[in-house]
Amino acid sequence: MKFVYGFSEGKADMRDLLGGKGANLAEMTNLGVPVPPGFTVTTETCNAYLENKQKFPSGLEEQIWEALSALEKQQGKKFGDTQNPLLVSVRSGAKFSMPGMMDTVLNLGLNDEVVAGFAEKTGNSRFAYDSYRRFIQMFSDVVLGVEHHKFEEALDALKKEKELENDVDLTSENWQEVVLMYKKIVQKSLGKSFPQEPKEQLLLAIQAVFKSWNIPRARTYREIHKIDHHLGTAVNVQAMVFGNMGETSGTGVAFTRNPSTGEKKFYGEFLMNAQGEDVVAGIRTPEPIEGLKAVMPEAYAELEEIYQKLESHFRDMQDLEFTIEEGTLYLLQTRNGKRTAAAAVRIAVEMQEEGMISKKEAVSRIEANSLDTLLHPCLDPNQTKEIIAKGLPASPGAACGKVVFHADTAKEWSDKGKKVILVRKETSPEDIHGMHAAQGILTSCGGMTSHAAVVARGMGTPCVAGATDVIINPKAGKFTVNDTVVNEGDVITLDGTEGAVILGECKTIEAALSEEFETILRWADEIRTLQIRTNADTPEDAQRAMEFGAQGIGLCRTEHMFFDEERIRCMREMILSNTQAERIKAVDKLLPFQKQDFKDIFKIMKGRPVTIRLFDPPLHEFLPEKDKDVEDLAKDFGLTFEQVKDRAENLQEVNPMLGHRGCRLAITYPEILYMQTQAILEAACEVQKEGIEVKPEIMIPLVGKSEELDILAEKVRKIANKVLQESCPDLKYTVGTMMEIPRACAVANRIAGHAEFFSFGTNDLTQLTFGYSRDDVARFVPYYKEHGVLDADPFETLDQRGVGEVIKMGIERGRKVKPDLKIGVCGEHGGDPDSIDFFHREGFNYVSCSPFRVPIARLAAAQAAIRNR
Amino acid sequence: MKFVYGFSEGKADMRDLLGGKGANLAEMTNLGVPVPPGFTVTTETCNAYLENKQKFPSGLEEQIWEALSALEKQQGKKFGDTQNPLLVSVRSGAKFSMPGMMDTVLNLGLNDEVVAGFAEKTGNSRFAYDSYRRFIQMFSDVVLGVEHHKFEEALDALKKEKELENDVDLTSENWQEVVLMYKKIVQKSLGKSFPQEPKEQLLLAIQAVFKSWNIPRARTYREIHKIDHHLGTAVNVQAMVFGNMGETSGTGVAFTRNPSTGEKKFYGEFLMNAQGEDVVAGIRTPEPIEGLKAVMPEAYAELEEIYQKLESHFRDMQDLEFTIEEGTLYLLQTRNGKRTAAAAVRIAVEMQEEGMISKKEAVSRIEANSLDTLLHPCLDPNQTKEIIAKGLPASPGAACGKVVFHADTAKEWSDKGKKVILVRKETSPEDIHGMHAAQGILTSCGGMTSHAAVVARGMGTPCVAGATDVIINPKAGKFTVNDTVVNEGDVITLDGTEGAVILGECKTIEAALSEEFETILRWADEIRTLQIRTNADTPEDAQRAMEFGAQGIGLCRTEHMFFDEERIRCMREMILSNTQAERIKAVDKLLPFQKQDFKDIFKIMKGRPVTIRLFDPPLHEFLPEKDKDVEDLAKDFGLTFEQVKDRAENLQEVNPMLGHRGCRLAITYPEILYMQTQAILEAACEVQKEGIEVKPEIMIPLVGKSEELDILAEKVRKIANKVLQESCPDLKYTVGTMMEIPRACAVANRIAGHAEFFSFGTNDLTQLTFGYSRDDVARFVPYYKEHGVLDADPFETLDQRGVGEVIKMGIERGRKVKPDLKIGVCGEHGGDPDSIDFFHREGFNYVSCSPFRVPIARLAAAQAAIRNR
Repeated sequence: MKFVYGFSEGKADMRDLLGGKGANLAEMTNLGVPVPPGFTVTTETCNAYLENKQKFPSGLEEQIWEALSALEKQQGKKFGDTQNPLLVSVRSGAKFSMPGMMDTVLNLGLNDEVVAGFAEKTGNSRFAYDSYRRFIQMFSDVVLGVEHHKFEEALDALKKEKELENDVDLTSENWQEVVLMYKKIVQKSLGKSFPQEPKEQLLLAIQAVFKSWNIPRARTYREIHKIDHHLGTAVNVQAMVFGNMGETSGTGVAFTRNPSTGEKKFYGEFLMNAQGEDVVAGIRTPEPIEGLKAVMPEAYAELEEIYQKLESHFRDMQDLEFTIEEGTLYLLQTRNGKRTAAAAVRIAVEMQEEGMISKKEAVSRIEANSLDTLLHPCLDPNQTKEIIAKGLPASPGAACGKVVFHADTAKEWSDKGKKVILVRKETSPEDIHGMHAAQGILTSCGGMTSHAAVVARGMGTPCVAGATDVIINPKAGKFTVNDTVVNEGDVITLDGTEGAVILGECKTIEAALSEEFETILRWADEIRTLQIRTNADTPEDAQRAMEFGAQGIGLCRTEHMFFDEERIRCMREMILSNTQAERIKAVDKLLPFQKQDFKDIFKIMKGRPVTIRLFDPPLHEFLPEKDKDVEDLAKDFGLTFEQVKDRAENLQEVNPMLGHRGCRLAITYPEILYMQTQAILEAACEVQKEGIEVKPEIMIPLVGKSEELDILAEKVRKIANKVLQESCPDLKYTVGTMMEIPRACAVANRIAGHAEFFSFGTNDLTQLTFGYSRDDVARFVPYYKEHGVLDADPFETLDQRGVGEVIKMGIERGRKVKPDLKIGVCGEHGGDPDSIDFFHREGFNYVSCSPFRVPIARLAAAQAAIRNR
Repeated sequence: MKFVYGFSEGKADMRDLLGGKGANLAEMTNLGVPVPPGFTVTTETCNAYLENKQKFPSGLEEQIWEALSALEKQQGKKFGDTQNPLLVSVRSGAKFSMPGMMDTVLNLGLNDEVVAGFAEKTGNSRFAYDSYRRFIQMFSDVVLGVEHHKFEEALDALKKEKELENDVDLTSENWQEVVLMYKKIVQKSLGKSFPQEPKEQLLLAIQAVFKSWNIPRARTYREIHKIDHHLGTAVNVQAMVFGNMGETSGTGVAFTRNPSTGEKKFYGEFLMNAQGEDVVAGIRTPEPIEGLKAVMPEAYAELEEIYQKLESHFRDMQDLEFTIEEGTLYLLQTRNGKRTAAAAVRIAVEMQEEGMISKKEAVSRIEANSLDTLLHPCLDPNQTKEIIAKGLPASPGAACGKVVFHADTAKEWSDKGKKVILVRKETSPEDIHGMHAAQGILTSCGGMTSHAAVVARGMGTPCVAGATDVIINPKAGKFTVNDTVVNEGDVITLDGTEGAVILGECKTIEAALSEEFETILRWADEIRTLQIRTNADTPEDAQRAMEFGAQGIGLCRTEHMFFDEERIRCMREMILSNTQAERIKAVDKLLPFQKQDFKDIFKIMKGRPVTIRLFDPPLHEFLPEKDKDVEDLAKDFGLTFEQVKDRAENLQEVNPMLGHRGCRLAITYPEILYMQTQAILEAACEVQKEGIEVKPEIMIPLVGKSEELDILAEKVRKIANKVLQESCPDLKYTVGTMMEIPRACAVANRIAGHAEFFSFGTNDLTQLTFGYSRDDVARFVPYYKEHGVLDADPFETLDQRGVGEVIKMGIERGRKVKPDLKIGVCGEHGGDPDSIDFFHREGFNYVSCSPFRVPIARLAAAQAAIRNR
């Protein structure tokens, strides 16, 4: 078994085995780029070591010595030699970059004797002893587990004693003294002396890197970034080069293009007579990379040539590390550079235009979710922020304003020109006007698909939801987080992208869409097969979604239309009626309003399909809660307070989520369905007569039994056909169902018989499949995510293993009966890239998401198509 | 195609084709029992007629005339003949008896001329014209659709005019006058005369019977009794015999054994000189069958011989109809007799002992659900009752008492020796003491598995749940149903078997178990393969269930144990604690209580398995709701009112069913789990040391992710093993999970890896699969049942088509990983016969149900084993 690869033996595509750093060092070596030579111990070796009770697999040591002696030959130096010693660095390097998470040892190979020879050889005794003390400090910390503050304290004490301010002020003698002190610290801490045998040092260092794979910060990093714990890390052993050997030495970091803007211009910084760690320590300020041209023109010219070569070779923007040792340039690392979303888009488009990559590659290069930052204002990162609470990143973007606790106040203050943040335990449809008026919304309960979250995303308003530490006391006009008290009128800032609540006002950066953004989405549209629709309840939503490229409306929730003052009165009249005749009379007053709603939307959508979900919420949402309002209502309708109160109480439910709503309400009280069907079809006819094509799709929610759909679809078709016969016989409409009840998936074969389409309502389906209430999950889902019970919030990204299985059952059984059944999704998952990949694979026809997710969905659908080709 | 079968051509096992009546008439004919001859038109003919736009299939008429002419030959009479006319009856007869639901025509074949000949032939003009007017009345009503009240009014007018009181007072002339009047009514109603052609009469009558299959009352009956609408009815055409031809004629109904008690003694009643309809009309009181011996000894002797022959032949208790025409006995019908549960049990056991049937047949003969009436007191049927409201039959039995609206009042009044009925919108664990104290429980919300229903069934207390018309106003101390007001202290009676609320006190009959009851259950135990366990939370429940034959406890809910005054204080202390240390301290105070609970139960169960479900409910159930109680609590713990109120509000959930409870609570706050595990194992060790075997099974509720079970099972095993190591190393326990979240079924393969058993919690699984809240379903499930959306309440009988599919997925995936995984059910469905059949077929190891359902489950499990052999 081969455990060790010389750099010349590897290639870029051996990342699994050699890690990202090792593979790219090998690739650079083979490209002829000057890289300090060395070798890589494979990730497999790491795994074998960790699985085998932290013992080296047999044969490994031999391979290491062999590689080391090759390195000695190449460098003309000897490891541990007192005349011409070879020093090496030992660095981790996993498949996916985990910056700063694992351990590194530099200057390895020094000991009390070697350092003397090294001093002589370099002619720089101060440099040699400084290197040695750095090595002892790093090795002791990383490999031996001696706490690094002990070394720092000792060094500080010495500097104080000698009245020296900076490290540069120390002489060779001072460093020699430091070395003695350091060795004593090791002796004292471990009860044994610092290892003097270079080979032992090397083996210990390699083991330490292996072990660092499993240290907590590394595990946490992998969990956050969804990196498999079983990959293991490789170890790169490389000849040391020094950027701190004088004025012809230096070190730097550079990007082949601007990682913030994407501009095609070499970008970076350097520092002369320094090692990488000095740059990190921030003692001296590095200079822009262009400055290197003046200082060392030859090295700069070589670097320019190399960066172009590397970018062409790797066909992506590169992040380089280099060191110049006494005039000689060495590349220490190259990797695909991290970049902002704006840069990613510009680089991808320009590289395609330069002929470097294909359109598909360009489309694949952009993390779909990152587009969010381009669509919403975000916080200026260059400011200090006092984060007082964290919640769920329920709707992206940044907003600041004065805290208010009531929707009415929000509206009132906003009308007066004040910017407000609406802070509520949770929101309900009654709060819509306040949510519209607010710059941002903060709730202490509820999850990613709570009312606040869904509505805020729809409106593009930043929202932090389920911030459980925020204790809201609307009566007292304040909220508290631990000891912090925030009063009504105080200014806070919400970072909906991160889920942070910040005290005071912060600077924000406005959103701006580039031409390249449009280009990349146009390419995505050419590639994807999934249709992208939007969830839109209002003409404004529909208009925005059309601008973002939606191909139809996948979910038009009609109930939000009922909360307008004039309309809610009719709803209340209906609820308080005693006979069907009275109910019909009350509901029919809503007909002209609804008709106008639909006409407006149909006109905007210009022949694109519009799926209208019939009335869904439970009736109690429409009755007032406060006694005062109940009294007003009773007076208005000539009833007693008791009568209205009784009715309201009678409608209360223990678990409204599982209660009398959706098709259950339509079956027992069909009046609303009658009115809505009439309104939809009359609106459709009138718009069609204006010469605008209309494609209404009527969707019946909450179906769990085929009988429910059978009964209601028949009612809908009867009314619809009557309207059409009278005015518009050639207009086509369809009737389908939300698939949001697990039972519906189990009996999808029976339901498909009555449905012209299925639209998976993945929010409710997730709620029921998990048994989680989206309004209450904030109590345990964050804990679950932190402790590895959940990989992700299932309301954010579809739980493919559980909910996905239920959906698959629904599709399979439905299409068994109707092979060409149109299938879509209209839950929040319709805008989530991972979920979109699933929907693509499972043969969905379309996904529907909030307007601001439409660009993301377009890109993600294209990526899914590429990935699953 | 053969549409018509002579009685001698049929057999008892041709019920599908000939209907129950026709098949048995044929069987009797072939047995040599005197049956008036005739023929049967098949059920297939009925279906063909109904499907073919109500047209006779071709060839049917010819077959009818052929059969009719055979009948004429046999009887030596001619149909429509004016000298010696053959009269026939035309009766419906479906596969399953639908008494009184469909139509019958007697005396068919009479017309204006035939009646004269009939009068002459019988020498009884009065009888002949009475027969003719009966025929006109019946035929016009049933076949021609003339409303029967018109005939009754005309007859009454004539009697008034002639000053005659009873029908028997009318002379032949009077009846002739009636005939004329009746014919005029027909002429006036239909605009055409009464059909005089006998063959036309016969064809019309047969068609009318066919059509009567689909009249609303028949459809409703079939829906109630779950009879397939596609079976159709047969039509029996039979020579008329007359029990009203004088003092040597008569008619009667008899049972071969007593249908109330099961006693083996001929039982029935008869009436001389009468037709069956006279008995029904109740004008004369029939006499006990024994009286016939004195009146007509020969006919009685023949009847005795026949009934014994029929019972032996049909091997079941028979319900006979007979007519004696001028001394000659005819059997008109035989069928398996309906009987009470007590009679069913006694007859089955005695018939087995007589060697007539096998044990398996005996076991199959008893409707398992009917045993319920033997286990609970029931209402004396011989009394008038004022039913003021209907609800769900949530827990069987009858109870009366004074109405109270608070659990505390219930306890208080009961302690003073008063019988009370607890009336609540819904109950919660806080009400347990009041529920225990009450004779019966009435709720206005909630379904068959609501808290009230489940607890009441467990205690054997009658309960009517979800009586939505009952509007409760506890503050005013009253409830109203429409205009009826019932005040606290008023007496009501509950019929939990029927779901009725009755005003005032009713007489009840106490439950009493017979020796035969024990015998039949012993036989059931020999046959069944499913184990029957019980749901028992207390030693009392456990004791009762053991007496009913439970083989273990399948569900011991531990949370009810926490509501005791002393204990709830500890729970509240825990909830109000700020640190884990404080919480552990509070919870540990519960340890001795819990340990004693478990010791008591283990001792009673004597080595039978006891599945203990760890803490399940959400914490807010343990905090008081009323401000007064909150204040007391705050004082008790040295907190402010605000602090306690805040905590309580913070724990409130929008949908508690889908909230922070079960394993979710155990993961975030593991203290209760630690304490409970400790208590279970310490209790087990102590009981084992007393020489009593113990089999604890620890069950983790609400698992939806395998990670949840993994984490918690590990914690449980760690604590358990520690306890065992210290005191009882050879004691065995298992750790398993409730399967009640749909997701758990989808990922059962992953969950099975951590579970030693699965126990399907079908209540919650039904709630989630349907998206129904068991506390709220009363709003629409009754409507759904009435209107055919639901066949049955899914909380009562398992929804095999939907929830069953989810369960099957769970079993299949679980056993794929662990082929011998123990699988049980602990929802309320564990006591439902239809559901038990499903559990048997799907390879469950056991079902668990409330103590009072154990006998039913034992029987149902045996029947399932027989049925699915």
